Amino acid sequence: MHFEPASGAEPAGSEAGRPARQPYDLITLTTDYGLRDGFVGACHGVIHERAPHVRIVDLSHFVGAGDVRRGAILLAQMLPSFPVGVHVGIVDPGVGTDREPVAVATVRGDVLVGPDNGLLVWAAEALGGAAAAVSTTEPRWHRHPVSRTFHGRDIFAPVSAHLASGAALRGLGPVVDPESLIRLPDPVVRSAGQGVETEVLAVDHFGNVQLAARPEDLATLGADPGAVVHVGAHRARRAQTFGDVPAGAVALIEDSAGHAAVVANGASAAEMLDLHPGDLVELR
Amino acid sequence: MHFEPASGAEPAGSEAGRPARQPYDLITLTTDYGLRDGFVGACHGVIHERAPHVRIVDLSHFVGAGDVRRGAILLAQMLPSFPVGVHVGIVDPGVGTDREPVAVATVRGDVLVGPDNGLLVWAAEALGGAAAAVSTTEPRWHRHPVSRTFHGRDIFAPVSAHLASGAALRGLGPVVDPESLIRLPDPVVRSAGQGVETEVLAVDHFGNVQLAARPEDLATLGADPGAVVHVGAHRARRAQTFGDVPAGAVALIEDSAGHAAVVANGASAAEMLDLHPGDLVELR
Amino acid sequence: MHFEPASGAEPAGSEAGRPARQPYDLITLTTDYGLRDGFVGACHGVIHERAPHVRIVDLSHFVGAGDVRRGAILLAQMLPSFPVGVHVGIVDPGVGTDREPVAVATVRGDVLVGPDNGLLVWAAEALGGAAAAVSTTEPRWHRHPVSRTFHGRDIFAPVSAHLASGAALRGLGPVVDPESLIRLPDPVVRSAGQGVETEVLAVDHFGNVQLAARPEDLATLGADPGAVVHVGAHRARRAQTFGDVPAGAVALIEDSAGHAAVVANGASAAEMLDLHPGDLVELR
Repeated sequence: MHFEPASGAEPAGSEAGRPARQPYDLITLTTDYGLRDGFVGACHGVIHERAPHVRIVDLSHFVGAGDVRRGAILLAQMLPSFPVGVHVGIVDPGVGTDREPVAVATVRGDVLVGPDNGLLVWAAEALGGAAAAVSTTEPRWHRHPVSRTFHGRDIFAPVSAHLASGAALRGLGPVVDPESLIRLPDPVVRSAGQGVETEVLAVDHFGNVQLAARPEDLATLGADPGAVVHVGAHRARRAQTFGDVPAGAVALIEDSAGHAAVVANGASAAEMLDLHPGDLVELR
Repeated sequence: MHFEPASGAEPAGSEAGRPARQPYDLITLTTDYGLRDGFVGACHGVIHERAPHVRIVDLSHFVGAGDVRRGAILLAQMLPSFPVGVHVGIVDPGVGTDREPVAVATVRGDVLVGPDNGLLVWAAEALGGAAAAVSTTEPRWHRHPVSRTFHGRDIFAPVSAHLASGAALRGLGPVVDPESLIRLPDPVVRSAGQGVETEVLAVDHFGNVQLAARPEDLATLGADPGAVVHVGAHRARRAQTFGDVPAGAVALIEDSAGHAAVVANGASAAEMLDLHPGDLVELR
Repeated sequence: MHFEPASGAEPAGSEAGRPARQPYDLITLTTDYGLRDGFVGACHGVIHERAPHVRIVDLSHFVGAGDVRRGAILLAQMLPSFPVGVHVGIVDPGVGTDREPVAVATVRGDVLVGPDNGLLVWAAEALGGAAAAVSTTEPRWHRHPVSRTFHGRDIFAPVSAHLASGAALRGLGPVVDPESLIRLPDPVVRSAGQGVETEVLAVDHFGNVQLAARPEDLATLGADPGAVVHVGAHRARRAQTFGDVPAGAVALIEDSAGHAAVVANGASAAEMLDLHPGDLVELR
C-alpha cells in the first residue's frame, strides 16, 4: 500500500509481467470549489473513469475562495485521521500561470497532489514529512485538452487517479526538491508578558475558535479544570468538553486536532468574542 | 442481511469456520457537522479504513447545530426509504459528558448508532421498533486516542464500520433496555374546537411546511380536492401536488413522508405564512 | 458499455442464457433539492438497493429551486466531461402533474433521466444528440407507493438504477419522439452594432460570469492578449486566465466549458459588474 518513490517512471506493476497493482484505494478531495457549479462532480467523473476502484472522499469544498492558508490548515489537521491515500488539494488562485502543479510523496506513504503554493507542505509534514516530489507536467497523465482555468478536472484529478491505479511518482514529471516547495508563514505562537499571544487558525461551523497554540504552549496559565484564563478581554474556564461549563459559558479546551480552542456550550464562541481567522489573541 | 440480536459477542461469521460475513453494505450518516470543516470527511475516512466494502450515504449534515429534535424527525422520516443498514446519527451537544453512546438494533434489521439523547428512538420505531440496545463503550471498537469533542470520528464512525464488517451488537458494550433510552416530547397533534392544532415539524429547502398532523388527523376538515382549509389566518386549498393550485397559491397536501404539509406553487409557504419549526398552527 | 436503443423490453442480458450485464457503472445526480433535508440521501439509498455496483456522483444539488434553465445549462456543460453513464436531472416544479417523466438515450451511449420540461434536451445534444426516448411510466421500475411530490425517490432514482443494472430503455414505457421533447428558448447571442449582445448564462461560486457567447462569436472584438473589450460600461482585458491581469482587474477569458467569461483576479466579477444570470450584456 505504501508508495515507493524509487520505483521509476513506469506505471507500477508494468514490469516483470506482474499484474498491475492498484496501490491506493482512497482519494480525498479538498477544494474551494463549493458544491453549486458541478466542478467537484466533474473531478469525481474524471477520477471514476481512470480509477473505478477507488473511494473518493470529499474532505471539504468550502475552503474560502483562494484561501490557501485555510486549505493548508485543514489538510494538515485532517489528513492524519485518514488511512494512507492520494490526497488532492486545490485552492489555486494562480491556476494557469507559471506556478507548478506538484505531487508530494510522504514518509507515511501518501501522495499529495495540488498546486505548489503552500497548500500541501504542512500536510506533508503532518504525515511524516515529504519523501519526494515531482512537478506533474507530463501530458500523458492529463485530461485533454487542458483548460487554463480548471486544472482540478484536467490535471489534478486525472493525476490522482493514475497514481491510485499504479502510475509511479517519477513518471509524472521532473523531480522537485521537497525543500524548494513554497511554504506559508508559520502560525503565530509566542510568549507575551506572563501569557501567550497566538493566532486564530480557524473558526468552525459551530463557532469554535481554534488557536495556533497547543495545550503545552499554555502550561504557564494553569491547566486545572475550572481555572480561569483571560482570552483578550474575556474570561474562559479550562475544561475538557462543551458540557463541562454552564450553557452559554466560554471554555478553553483541547480540540480534536490537538489545538487549544475557545468554545462556548451551545453557542458560538467566535460570535461572542468577535474572533476571526488570522486574528491575534492574548491568553493570560 | 438482517441483524441477529442474539448472536453473541463474537464478530459474525467467526464461528464454525465459515468465512466472515459482512452483514451490512450500507452506512448512512446524519449530523449537524456541516460540510466546511472536514468533520464529515474524517468520518468517511475512518469508516473506509475499517469497512472498505460499504457504501456511505450522507443523509444530511445540515441539521441545525445541536438541534436534536430536527435530527430525530429527519431520521424517522427518511430511514424507512432506505434498505437495511447501519445508520449513524450525530447531533450531540453533550459530547464528552456522561450521556451514553448507544447502538440500537431495529426489528427490521438495521442498527442505529449515536448518542442516547432522543435522536434515535423515533427512527427505531419507524423501522419496526427497537429489538435490542447496547452502550457502545467497549474500547476495542473505538479509534484511539478518543478525543473529548469528536466522538463522530472516534466512536460512532468506527463502531458503525465494525458493525458493517461483522462485529456483533453485544460485543460493543453493556446491554441497555431499549425502554430506558431517552425520548423527546411527542409532536403536538390535538383537536381544537372544530379543527386541529398541530406542530410545525420542519420547513424544507423549498419552504414547504411539514406538520405533525397526518391526513387522517384532518378528516373532519374535508378532503375533497379544492376544499378550503384555514391555516391560522391563511386559506389553503386541499390538493395533491404543487401544480394543482395556481402559481403562488397555497395548498394543503400529503407530503412524501405521509404528513400534512402546507406548500405553495413555486414559492415558499413558510415565508408566505411566516411559519417555523416548533410553531403551533390551527387548522379549521 | 454503450446503450443499445433497439434491444427490446427485457432487461439486457436476460436473453440467450448470458449472464446479466450491468451496462452502466456510473449514475450522476443533478437536482435543486439542496443537501439539508435528506432528499438526495433518499435517492442514493434507492439507487444503492437496486444497483449496488454503481458509483453515484453528485453533480450539483444547488440548482436554484425550480430553475430549469440553470439545471439545463449545468447538465449540458458538465456531462461531456463525464464517462458514459446514466445521468439523472431533477428540477421539476411540475412534479405530480401531467408533465411526462422521460429517459433519453444519447448517441454517445448515455441515458438521461428526468422530467420532460426542457431540462435534458441541451444535455442530450451536448452528448451527440438524442438517439431515442421513452416516457418512464411503467410501474414495474418505480418505487411503490409512488408519492405525488417526490418523483426523485419514487421514479427517477429507481429507473436510473434499473437502467444501470440492465433494464432496456424500451421496457421503461411508451416510446417518445425525441423531436417532441420540450425545449427551452435558446440563449441569446446576436450581433449588435459593432459588437455582440449576449446573455449571462451563469454566475459561479467565485463570481465568474459565464456568457452564452463563445470565443468565436467575439472574433471581431480583437483577441490579442491584453486587448481591451467593453463589457457594458466596464472595461476588461483579453486574457487566458485569472493571473494574467493584475489583482482585482477584470478579464475576458475562455472558460473551461468553452464559453466567454468575464472574470476578475481574486475577486467576484459578478459583484463588480453587477451581473446576474439572464442579464443581457453588450460587448464592444
